[in-house]
Amino acid sequence: MPAFDTTFPASHDIRTQIAGMSLENIATVAKQAFDNTSVIPLWFGEGDLPTPAFIGEAAADGIRAGHTFYSHQNGIPALRETLSDYYRRIHDSAVGPERITVTSGGMPAIMLAVELLVDRGDNIVVIDPVWPNIGGIVQMVGGEVRSVRMDLGTDGWSLDVDRVRAACDARTKAIFYASPGNPTGAMIPLETQAALLALGRERGIWILADEVYNRLKFGASAAPSLVSIAAPEDRVLIINSFSKSWAMTGWRLGWLVHPPSIAPQLAMMTQYVTSGTATFLQDAAIAAIRQGEPFVAETNRYCETGMTIVCDALDTMPRVRLAARPQAAMYVFFEIDGLADSRAACLDILERTRVGLAPGSFFGPGSASFFRICFCRNPTVLADAMERLRPVLS
Amino acid sequence: MPAFDTTFPASHDIRTQIAGMSLENIATVAKQAFDNTSVIPLWFGEGDLPTPAFIGEAAADGIRAGHTFYSHQNGIPALRETLSDYYRRIHDSAVGPERITVTSGGMPAIMLAVELLVDRGDNIVVIDPVWPNIGGIVQMVGGEVRSVRMDLGTDGWSLDVDRVRAACDARTKAIFYASPGNPTGAMIPLETQAALLALGRERGIWILADEVYNRLKFGASAAPSLVSIAAPEDRVLIINSFSKSWAMTGWRLGWLVHPPSIAPQLAMMTQYVTSGTATFLQDAAIAAIRQGEPFVAETNRYCETGMTIVCDALDTMPRVRLAARPQAAMYVFFEIDGLADSRAACLDILERTRVGLAPGSFFGPGSASFFRICFCRNPTVLADAMERLRPVLS
Repeated sequence: MPAFDTTFPASHDIRTQIAGMSLENIATVAKQAFDNTSVIPLWFGEGDLPTPAFIGEAAADGIRAGHTFYSHQNGIPALRETLSDYYRRIHDSAVGPERITVTSGGMPAIMLAVELLVDRGDNIVVIDPVWPNIGGIVQMVGGEVRSVRMDLGTDGWSLDVDRVRAACDARTKAIFYASPGNPTGAMIPLETQAALLALGRERGIWILADEVYNRLKFGASAAPSLVSIAAPEDRVLIINSFSKSWAMTGWRLGWLVHPPSIAPQLAMMTQYVTSGTATFLQDAAIAAIRQGEPFVAETNRYCETGMTIVCDALDTMPRVRLAARPQAAMYVFFEIDGLADSRAACLDILERTRVGLAPGSFFGPGSASFFRICFCRNPTVLADAMERLRPVLS
Repeated sequence: MPAFDTTFPASHDIRTQIAGMSLENIATVAKQAFDNTSVIPLWFGEGDLPTPAFIGEAAADGIRAGHTFYSHQNGIPALRETLSDYYRRIHDSAVGPERITVTSGGMPAIMLAVELLVDRGDNIVVIDPVWPNIGGIVQMVGGEVRSVRMDLGTDGWSLDVDRVRAACDARTKAIFYASPGNPTGAMIPLETQAALLALGRERGIWILADEVYNRLKFGASAAPSLVSIAAPEDRVLIINSFSKSWAMTGWRLGWLVHPPSIAPQLAMMTQYVTSGTATFLQDAAIAAIRQGEPFVAETNRYCETGMTIVCDALDTMPRVRLAARPQAAMYVFFEIDGLADSRAACLDILERTRVGLAPGSFFGPGSASFFRICFCRNPTVLADAMERLRPVLS
């Protein structure tokens, strides 16, 4: 053991896994412009709509009512029942409250899933392009990410289940996908999801389905949900969040749909990870679900309008390569001729245009030449951003 | 690989670590009486004072001001600076904002510390009797807890540093202690903490100091803090929380004091674990620190009054064995002649008296015959509870 030496910083003495992880993410790249109002920030997975006032007031009422004490680890019964009703109403599916655990955001839901399943040396097959945080948490616990990339054709992104099957081995604990997808806005058709579920059943592999963009399918009330085809005791975990459709990114509120048999383990893990979610925030979540449908529909249209503005502009920029418009979510994911290093290009574009784009390099191994724009923003601002980008992208 | 079989529940297919962990904790024992108003609940580590209104209004104002978006992973600068001022004011110590990471509670602060340091096969030496959650999270990540029990003498609890030293080996990553302690209300004198720090320096072992009861030292404004003797780059992590002194248990707000060199890793891990803490909750935390001193002082007196009521009553009950009154925190930890199995006894006492006590069996290997009472409660209610307990404890 080395004796204490003040010239040997503490950072040299942490877990190898943690020390080896990249410290860079969209937030660290964006940090320099966090409070710079001259920048149009299209890099985060976040819209510019504030949380609806009725949701905020429900939280304030909960605080005033003294809902400030410890509560149920798996979420207050009223919220779990409200979410059960929601699945009946939106997806015509029976998902009992015993299958629902409330989490402090979509990310903690993924974290619980990974801590539940992945030991050092185990792997998760991750369908990409994908939001990078699933990879981060798998790396943190010492697991391995096996990327299977969707194919980009003239009609957009599609998934070859045979390639997923080929990537699985005896240490594969789960297959992770998001539909609608971030950063692509692509859908994985329900028949393809059924094939993944069948593969999971055959091999004893869990399916982790990220459905946080479920309500942002353009021209529809919702995208299909895996709940409609999975049995309660299937090895299926469905991740959801209030962030995107209810404009509650900063609230840190989400939920997990899971087999009833693991509810006690999830409650126990929640005790040791976050010790639960504030009751008054769950009061707000109930208001969001019960009274939020007009706002969700408005957000869906707002995103579709933003998508049209951005894609119409991109279509007129000769260096842009975009095979097909996104069908859902908040993002368009495209390439720019001559700009293969998206990270360097994003910093350069920020400098030259004051528009913040997210580099594709964060979204999986094959995406370093891609760029992500979040279009859940005010149409005038988006039009301004696209004009600023025009000289660089033309 | 087993083929899918609906008779084989998903719970049989999770990580061995998780499957092997006890699902029982105070919350699960208490669950049956959660909403039963005839029960006087002295089992949780939680007072009955609601959060002061000025703190709640600060959160409501933050929501109305639109502080509902993603924000800094390590906490908003204004809160980290406010906490830095707090250390100068309360502990006359310089703790720069670069040494402070805001967390979603004391438990997530401990979780970050353990994820940062403990690999499978590593161990943490834990000073007990202790709040059980440190053990739970170490078990979750596949580490080992080595318990070193404080000695109970006629003057109360004391720690033998030589026994701590003897428990450390090459795989010891950290020593964890809480002062003031839960469940004992005992203090570890600053000289003893200095000896632990010296041991850590000598052996390259981190010190994890839980100071969540720091402001509840009876007859004082605060207990001594390890910040007053640790250097910035010492391998020291200090866990704190708004829960106890500001009556914010359900808010899930805490912080970690750490070497500046690991701030980026803590921010990165926060991204992957919780993705941060709501900005409007941090607004409330700023109000708590800046305007909360009268309330903290009131809570301190409230606890001391509760301690006196409970201990005066216990002193008149011949079967109770309590060496010394607690000096701090919210708890008294005692034995009852003839009741060696505290878990069974607590259920029986609940049944017979409608008073909820916490079984000592949760607080470390040597404490199965102990009982914990939380006395941060209304004096009239405490007096009623003690009268209900009298027939059982006399």
